[in-house]
Amino acid sequence: MNQPVPSQVPVSTLASTPAIAAVEPFHAIAVSRVAHELAEAGLDVIHMEFGQPSTSAPAGAIAEAHRVLDTEPMGYWESNPLKERIAADYAERYGVTVDREQVILTCGASPALVLALSCLFAPGARVALARPGYVAYRNTLRALYLEPVELPCGEAERFQLTAAALAALDPAPDGVIIASPANPTGTIIPPDELAAIVAVCRARGIRIVSDEIYHGLSYVGPARSVLEHAPEAFVVNSFSKYFSMPGWRLGWLVVPPASIPAARARMGNLFLTPPVIAQRAGLAAFACRPELEDYVATYARNRDRLLAALPALGLSRVAPPDGAFYLYADIGHLTDDSLAFCERLLRDTGVCTAPGIDFDPVDGHRFMRFSFAVSTALVEEAIARMIPWFARQPRREV
Amino acid sequence: MNQPVPSQVPVSTLASTPAIAAVEPFHAIAVSRVAHELAEAGLDVIHMEFGQPSTSAPAGAIAEAHRVLDTEPMGYWESNPLKERIAADYAERYGVTVDREQVILTCGASPALVLALSCLFAPGARVALARPGYVAYRNTLRALYLEPVELPCGEAERFQLTAAALAALDPAPDGVIIASPANPTGTIIPPDELAAIVAVCRARGIRIVSDEIYHGLSYVGPARSVLEHAPEAFVVNSFSKYFSMPGWRLGWLVVPPASIPAARARMGNLFLTPPVIAQRAGLAAFACRPELEDYVATYARNRDRLLAALPALGLSRVAPPDGAFYLYADIGHLTDDSLAFCERLLRDTGVCTAPGIDFDPVDGHRFMRFSFAVSTALVEEAIARMIPWFARQPRREV
Repeated sequence: MNQPVPSQVPVSTLASTPAIAAVEPFHAIAVSRVAHELAEAGLDVIHMEFGQPSTSAPAGAIAEAHRVLDTEPMGYWESNPLKERIAADYAERYGVTVDREQVILTCGASPALVLALSCLFAPGARVALARPGYVAYRNTLRALYLEPVELPCGEAERFQLTAAALAALDPAPDGVIIASPANPTGTIIPPDELAAIVAVCRARGIRIVSDEIYHGLSYVGPARSVLEHAPEAFVVNSFSKYFSMPGWRLGWLVVPPASIPAARARMGNLFLTPPVIAQRAGLAAFACRPELEDYVATYARNRDRLLAALPALGLSRVAPPDGAFYLYADIGHLTDDSLAFCERLLRDTGVCTAPGIDFDPVDGHRFMRFSFAVSTALVEEAIARMIPWFARQPRREV
Repeated sequence: MNQPVPSQVPVSTLASTPAIAAVEPFHAIAVSRVAHELAEAGLDVIHMEFGQPSTSAPAGAIAEAHRVLDTEPMGYWESNPLKERIAADYAERYGVTVDREQVILTCGASPALVLALSCLFAPGARVALARPGYVAYRNTLRALYLEPVELPCGEAERFQLTAAALAALDPAPDGVIIASPANPTGTIIPPDELAAIVAVCRARGIRIVSDEIYHGLSYVGPARSVLEHAPEAFVVNSFSKYFSMPGWRLGWLVVPPASIPAARARMGNLFLTPPVIAQRAGLAAFACRPELEDYVATYARNRDRLLAALPALGLSRVAPPDGAFYLYADIGHLTDDSLAFCERLLRDTGVCTAPGIDFDPVDGHRFMRFSFAVSTALVEEAIARMIPWFARQPRREV
């Protein structure tokens, strides 16, 4: 109630109005649309193009949703018990203290990222991120008139940002988005490297946004939160991956205490409140760990099946995913047009995947991403269809 | 799939990075928090502070939600049938043709407004709007580094924008936000005036965003859509008011055909998809008109009760609301601090209202807003409590 009212909009440093930002579409959405048309025409499609569990929310969450529908009018509302439960999870999982009020509930991780960027940066700010990376990072930065500073990260860095790359950027960026486990590769930043990245950011005044949406989904030991090293960081997370509730649209942003008023004001004005039913069900989902861990065991099995099939597919340039449910593969020996390649694979076999150009505008034309958040039976079926198809593809002269 | 990729972020016209935008909080949220604390301490609170129906979604929508919970995994998804139904509603209600693809489904009207502003304007653009007006217009503009150009609208204009005021603005603004019925006053822009506003905008190149969230809730004949005059306008709407589904978080934006790619790309990157359960239930709600019209009849009754009580409350400077469920009253003879006045009214009587400062930073200190989207019995109870309380308030020397 005591926040000062600005006397005027702080745009006095704008020389003139810039052009409206161009924002790229998701190409995987276009491939998926073709898949749905082909399915309607009779093709048996296996959907491995999107990063979403094919399972539903856990049973306890669904039961709670039924109860809410019958008993609550569902107005604009924020669940303090949910914020408390999420805050407690940071103590349990990572040993860090997060106050309930630092947790801003959102309609998914996407608006949580918008909220974080809006709290931290003004137009013209430069924000570093790994390439390849989740397409929405780059596009959301552009839509907010922030400048993405893409750091190319290859197989040698397991497609992840390094402290050295951040330290070498001249001038220092205003911020950085880190993602571990990452999309599209599933690789995790090692704990020592994470600490080193934080140290570079502190030394150079780089603000940190950490996307931890794939936490809980890891196959080489748990991912660490950036909050273990940097309580000043902004952390994005959601119920869409580990909790298997993508279409419920519930996520959160952890902000440092000093940023609570700015984050709350933006949430209230730009987004208002998250869905009531998702907040109630999300709280119930915390009590459904056995079911959720079964999902993780399925993904682990799927990952093993895919990794074992790589030689038969002729794919050797792959960083085995540490977490998430993605495999990002170099297909440069087969194509220099990953979008056309994914479309051909889809039409010939029904296996729908995502082209690398969604994640890397420079080198993505020679990569593709498999999402293995489906049943193990479907992964096995997809592999069986793909092995003869890949064997038939001509090798490119490179 | 064919949208060109921008070679760099278009911020070259930024002289330097502006300061992070300051965004004001909702003061009504603070008053409401006090109300909840008082309720926990035993006070019998009547909530008239927020613009939300106290009723639940219609029965048909809730039944559909139960079905969805038991049968669908709920991934990222957009309902084409819902988009078609919404598009058809524009033909039925307003006689205008809207194609399904022009309807962008969102997580409520708030992100629909963000989407519209993001499609239309770049930082530094000037956007006109009425004062008093919905607080989030001003704050969302500021958060996006757009400049709100507030046009003072008094009782003479029934608190609404006029074509004359827009025509007189020098220089012409880049855009305008219109709202009819409006928040906080419920007044509707007359059809001739709406046509005149559109004519001024066309002549001066002013882009129109029309917030039509209170359509369906009117007591003097239906509100007209700006699309009847301006197919090039962007229209915000939602299931939160007429359909009585605020906590479901479902809204939409109608965009002109040329803006479909830009709007879809922004939706996919900044917000992804709206909640599945709300989309399914929202479609079902279209078949629940009798129940929804009963709600409207309740609001009409509540409006009559409040208007009839105004003399006994000593409130004479009021524009009778044409629609929505608000009454905005001049209390300048009693206070010059509407926030303190609303808090005192709450503590003394349990009637929770919104201070005018949320809607008008200049004159709002002498206004308050009643939301009458509660039962008629509660409106009558609130009036009974308020009459003796208002009678006891000392008149200010002015």
